[in-house]
Formats: sequence, structure tokens, C-alpha cells
Amino acid sequence: MNQPIAEIFSQGEEVICGQVTDTNAAWMSQRLTQMGFVIHRHTAVGDKLQDLVDLLDEISQRADLCICTGGLGPTTDDLTAEAVARAFNSPLQLDPVALEKIEKYFSRRNRVMAESNRKQAYFPQGALRLDNALGSAPGFAIKNNQCWFVFLPGVPSEMKHIFNELVQKKLEEWFVLQASKLIAIKTIGIGESDLQQKLDNFLLPEAVQLGFRAKTDEVQTKLLFPADATDVEINHCVDQVINIIGDPVYAIDDLNKSTTDLVNVIGHLMQDKNYTLWVQETATQGLIAAKCIGQGWLHGSNYTQSIDAVLDQLKIPEQDGLENTVQAIANKLKENQHSDLILVQLYKGNKEQFHHKEQSIILYNALLTPHGIFQQTLTTTGPIKRKQDQAAIKALDLLRRYLQNKCH
Amino acid sequence: MNQPIAEIFSQGEEVICGQVTDTNAAWMSQRLTQMGFVIHRHTAVGDKLQDLVDLLDEISQRADLCICTGGLGPTTDDLTAEAVARAFNSPLQLDPVALEKIEKYFSRRNRVMAESNRKQAYFPQGALRLDNALGSAPGFAIKNNQCWFVFLPGVPSEMKHIFNELVQKKLEEWFVLQASKLIAIKTIGIGESDLQQKLDNFLLPEAVQLGFRAKTDEVQTKLLFPADATDVEINHCVDQVINIIGDPVYAIDDLNKSTTDLVNVIGHLMQDKNYTLWVQETATQGLIAAKCIGQGWLHGSNYTQSIDAVLDQLKIPEQDGLENTVQAIANKLKENQHSDLILVQLYKGNKEQFHHKEQSIILYNALLTPHGIFQQTLTTTGPIKRKQDQAAIKALDLLRRYLQNKCH
Repeated sequence: MNQPIAEIFSQGEEVICGQVTDTNAAWMSQRLTQMGFVIHRHTAVGDKLQDLVDLLDEISQRADLCICTGGLGPTTDDLTAEAVARAFNSPLQLDPVALEKIEKYFSRRNRVMAESNRKQAYFPQGALRLDNALGSAPGFAIKNNQCWFVFLPGVPSEMKHIFNELVQKKLEEWFVLQASKLIAIKTIGIGESDLQQKLDNFLLPEAVQLGFRAKTDEVQTKLLFPADATDVEINHCVDQVINIIGDPVYAIDDLNKSTTDLVNVIGHLMQDKNYTLWVQETATQGLIAAKCIGQGWLHGSNYTQSIDAVLDQLKIPEQDGLENTVQAIANKLKENQHSDLILVQLYKGNKEQFHHKEQSIILYNALLTPHGIFQQTLTTTGPIKRKQDQAAIKALDLLRRYLQNKCH
Repeated sequence: MNQPIAEIFSQGEEVICGQVTDTNAAWMSQRLTQMGFVIHRHTAVGDKLQDLVDLLDEISQRADLCICTGGLGPTTDDLTAEAVARAFNSPLQLDPVALEKIEKYFSRRNRVMAESNRKQAYFPQGALRLDNALGSAPGFAIKNNQCWFVFLPGVPSEMKHIFNELVQKKLEEWFVLQASKLIAIKTIGIGESDLQQKLDNFLLPEAVQLGFRAKTDEVQTKLLFPADATDVEINHCVDQVINIIGDPVYAIDDLNKSTTDLVNVIGHLMQDKNYTLWVQETATQGLIAAKCIGQGWLHGSNYTQSIDAVLDQLKIPEQDGLENTVQAIANKLKENQHSDLILVQLYKGNKEQFHHKEQSIILYNALLTPHGIFQQTLTTTGPIKRKQDQAAIKALDLLRRYLQNKCH
């Protein structure tokens, strides 16, 4: 089945000049993708009439659906209805029902309707009015060539409300839709290119699309299944991919439902096992604790600048070699704090190496558990905040691996 | 003078499908607008080669500059360079210097470069390479028709870094630009509407535009001066506004030059006075320390869950009233840690109040200094991460006010 092609079109100088981040486009795209549309383009333009006319004309020649936000307000820079009238040769006409509703909107708020608001009751000939329960600007829909255009206000709450209440049902009437299913396999400690190499020889079912997404703290392997894939087929395919990737997998998200993150995954495991944790930080400087905000199993953390400062604080004599140092720190904290698990995050590197984005520092993490101590040595580089973040993620990931029985 | 026309072009299925909000476009638009460009369009497309080729061709016929982000990664869905090669008839060529840099990027991290990363060293003939200090994907620039195209990675930190370090200078070479001058007066502890009210009766010079921008941790009052405003005129106007606002002002940024943040401001003052700091955290859970990453004057911090846990850790008997409790904690830490300043961040509220976004907790901050102890009581509400962040910002702002002699 061919999926209908959709485009998103945002109007407003504030979007174009970067005073506002266009969150409407992302929200709308997610909804349309889930419903079974395939999105080809997002476009944003300012408040110039001819730009709007040209763009509407362009889109009507290449898409099946276009959702437009913004430009429906009462002021002179709100030109959407006029642009539609010109582009699609459908002169503006007063809709008396719309005018009445706009007048009521103001009278219910004990305000006088400004003359400029009358403009919001004019729609291109043949348009379907979409009432706005939350604001003064109604939306509308109109078809040109093979493309349905839906015009909604730019205020996110109003836009979402009209979409949910009115537009979604209309789209299900106008189009034959089959929603696809998107699964994200989330990993820490493996790069995008290594993931791809691992999966290079794996033969995915033909209808399944594979993609990758690198974020600062994780890489996601995404599997997009067609609408007719069964749960058994999906689970079988996901299991195979997880097996190939191995220990770096920390979570599997069904993106049609909800998403999780590393601290959530750890939180559930800690609660299941009824464990408590104490953390000693150096390079992460409080960030391990900060990332675990609201997690009651984290009993406390200390930060001091260096290994020497930690030894000094804990009144531990100098040890022979790093492995013994980490162990002595973990043991002393266990003795002082009575938590089930002790996570120690240390690093080696001078001030220059820590601050300079092209130099690296060496991270030593250790986790003292009822099953013994697990250690990890890593290198990290980049600007200082990136080093801090990477160090925190890697330390938490050591904890995650232990809780998932992946520490060997 | 005619302003050159710029467009922004974002590439990636994750943008098109709405998995990611395109914050790059807004950031870039703001920077280009400040530099003197006028932005006509934002466009986002997915990973289909022909879509990319068509769009590049379109833009090269109507803009003077196009900044493109995304699509430079090592995987098969990263098609930007190939699309440029086709659209502008400039076949891809291996750049040995780029390859060497990519290899070094991996070897410095003790990782083996995957074969797929070689692809990132191929550029369209005639392109100017833009090295990426933070990631494996270099950017590049190329001119077609009258339009300069600049291609940058989609990861925001890498994109911003390359723009700041390399692209901005190039744009100043390639174009005749007249930048307006934008000054941001940064405040903590006062809301947008209060700021507006304070400035309501102040008569700005006619050519100066006043605006406000509320961020999660501060509010900025922005003054936009025309390109021909003199430094004397600008300083005079800015001084008047600062006087009206008063103590909440923590910094004045000339946004054409650089920006500062609260921790930077505190850092300079701490270094000037040669002070050191120790922090006790509860609601902030390590975030005060984490925000001060790389600041040598922060000697250490402790986090425990509650006031009782702090008293327990420090072996302090229960005190009469909160003021005495805070004071006893500060004194004990001063005795143990020998830092010049002790910052104590405590809160009252149960688990429900801390977690629920519509309930509030009460924050008690105290700063023990050579000039006595300064205390602060505040309420904060919202989702738990917002409470944590607000608590950290307010505690740091107490320190800032003390260092700027604004604690009374």
C-alpha cells in the first residue's frame, strides 16, 4: 500500500528569525507518522504574501496532505487566508457562524471584540471551518489539486487541541491509513559505525527499515516495521538484533507507546533488588548524583577534586597502585555509609588535560557489590562538560551492567 | 544596503518524523540575523537522495547563503555529500588530510576506525573542508550559482562549535554585512512581567528595540541597537536600564561578542578574591557542584537526602529551629573542610511534594563567609528536575550576590 505523502508548513517571522523554536512541526510529524503518513518536508517562511502563495502552490503539486500552522491571527502580518485565496483561486467570504463564535469568545471574557478580529471569520470559498475552543482564531481545511490543506493556529495548545478534536477524524475519513511500528534499541558504550558494522551481515526482513541515531549519551538502533507486521514477527526480529549487539543494549522502546532512559532502567532494577547506593565523584563533580534526581535508593554522594583529596577526606593512607587505591576507597565508604553498593568514580589527568577539548583524561570506575568489586578503565576527550557527562554516563552504565548481570 | 538572503536546511529522517525538534534551525537563524543576513526559509527533508538533490538545486537559485545541518555521518542514510556532488556536478574526491584527522579522532580514543567512516573524508570537488574538533564528521563549504552552501554536522554541540570557530569568519569574508548590536541584560530572581512593568515608563531612544526572553534559569532583557549607534550611546542607554532593574542583574552580554553565564561570573569573582568553597546539597542532589565543573575554587561537595541525614553525617545533635540548624551545619563544615566559604542548601517537603509538579517545597540556603552568614528562604514548584535546577540556580545566585556586595 502506498502511504500518503504529508508536508508540514509553519508560518511566522518569529520562527524564521529564530526567536522561537518550531516545536509544532515535530509534534505534528510524530502524530502523522504514527497515523501512517510519510512526511517529505518541513518548510517555514515569514510573513511575505508572495512567499506564502508560491509555497502553497508548490506543495499542492507534490503532497497529499499539508498541515500549516500560524498566520491566522487578527493583525496585518497574518496573511494565511489571503494567500490561500490567491494561490487556489478561492476568494475570501465571510462565515457568519465563525463571526458569531468569535464575538462570543470575547463576550464570554467580558472583552470587546476589536474590529481587526472580524478578519478571522473570512475563509476561502469552499473551505471547511475548524472551530477553535481555546482561542479566537478558527482553523480551516481546503483541497487543491490532489492535496488537502489544513490550516491551524500557531499557538501550540490551540493547534494540538483542534488537531485532536477535529482534524484526526477528518484525516481518517479522507485517507486510507495504516500505521507503522517503530522500535528503538538503546545502547551505551558502542558507536554508531560499530553498530552498523555489527549488523552489516544481518539480513532484515525486506519490509523492515533499519536506522541509527547518535545522541550525546546513547546510540539508538531503530527498526521501522510495516503496519501489517505481527507482534511475533516484531519480537523475533528485535531479539535477533539485540543478540547481535549484546551487552551495550540497556533498553528497548516501543516508540508508539513510551520512552525510557538509563536512570529509569537503573531505578527499576534497584527497586526490584531493594538496593541502596553511595557515590564518590571526582571528574563528574556531582553529576552522577544529579542525574539520579528523585531516586530514593541513592543515599548520598561526595565530590572532591582528585584522588589525593579523596584519600585525604577519608583518611586513607597512600596505596600501592590504582587498583588498590580504588578498592581502599570503596571499602572505606562501605564502612562509613552502610549502602549496599558503592560506586567510585576517579580520574587521572592534570588540569590542562581536563580542560582542553583535544586532550583526554583516564577514568577509573569501580562498583563494590555483595558479589565483589567490578572495575572499568576508559578514556574520554572533548570539552570539559562533555568529559563530565561521558564520565557520569559510563559510571552509571557500569551500575546498569551489574544490575542486568552483564558484569563479568 | 541590501541584506544578503539566507536559508536554513536541515536533513534527517529523525527531524522529518518528529523524533527530534529542530533546535539547530532556530539557533542558526538567530546568529545569522544578528550578523546581518535576512532569513527567507527553513526547510527540512529526510534521507532520500533525489529530495536532497532537488532542494539543493532550488535553494541555489534563490538564496545567497544556505546553511545545512545533518547527513554527514558514516552510515548509508547520510547522503549529503553525494547529493551535493550530483546537484552541483562536483564529483566526490578523497581528502587525505580529512581521512588522517578522522583516523586520529578514533586513535586518540583508543578505538579502531570502522571502514564506513572513510566515507566522511570524501568531499565534492572544489569544496572547502571545515574541520570538526568534537566529532568524526568534518563539514564543508561550496559555492553554486551565486549561493554559498555550508554543510555542518547535525549534532548541536559540533554544529555550534564549527560555526563559531570557522564559519563565522568565512561569512564575514564572503559577504558585506552590517550587524545590528544586541545587548542582553541578564537577571536572576525577577520575572518577565515584573521586568516589563519596571521598564514601562522608561523612554528608550526611538531606534532601539526592547525585548524580553525568559529561559529556565534566567530572564534576559534585550536591547537591539541599529548598526550606526555609537558605544557612548549604547553604554548610556544600557546603564539606565541596569539602574532601573537593580540587584537581579548579574551580567551584561554584548551578544555580538560573547556570552557569559552565572558560573562564569561567579568564577571570575572567586578568583579575584582568591576564595575557596565547600557545598552541602540536599534538593539539588549534586547539581550545584556539577554546574561548577572545572572551577578550581570549588573544593568539594556532599549530597545527602534530607536535613536529618546531613545532621547524622556530620554528627551534629538536633538543633532548635531551622536557622540554628543551618548555622550549625555551616559551622561544622567550616571546621572540617577549611574552605573560605560554605554554601548550605537545605529543603523542607515530603517525597510527594518534591515529585509532584503542582506541589512546592521550601528551600533554605545559607552562605557562611568571613563577613558573617547570609540566609535565604524560597519556594519552588514544577516538575522535579525544574525544582532541582531552580534550587541550584538560587543557591549559586546567593553566592553571586555576596561576591558582588549585594547581600544586605
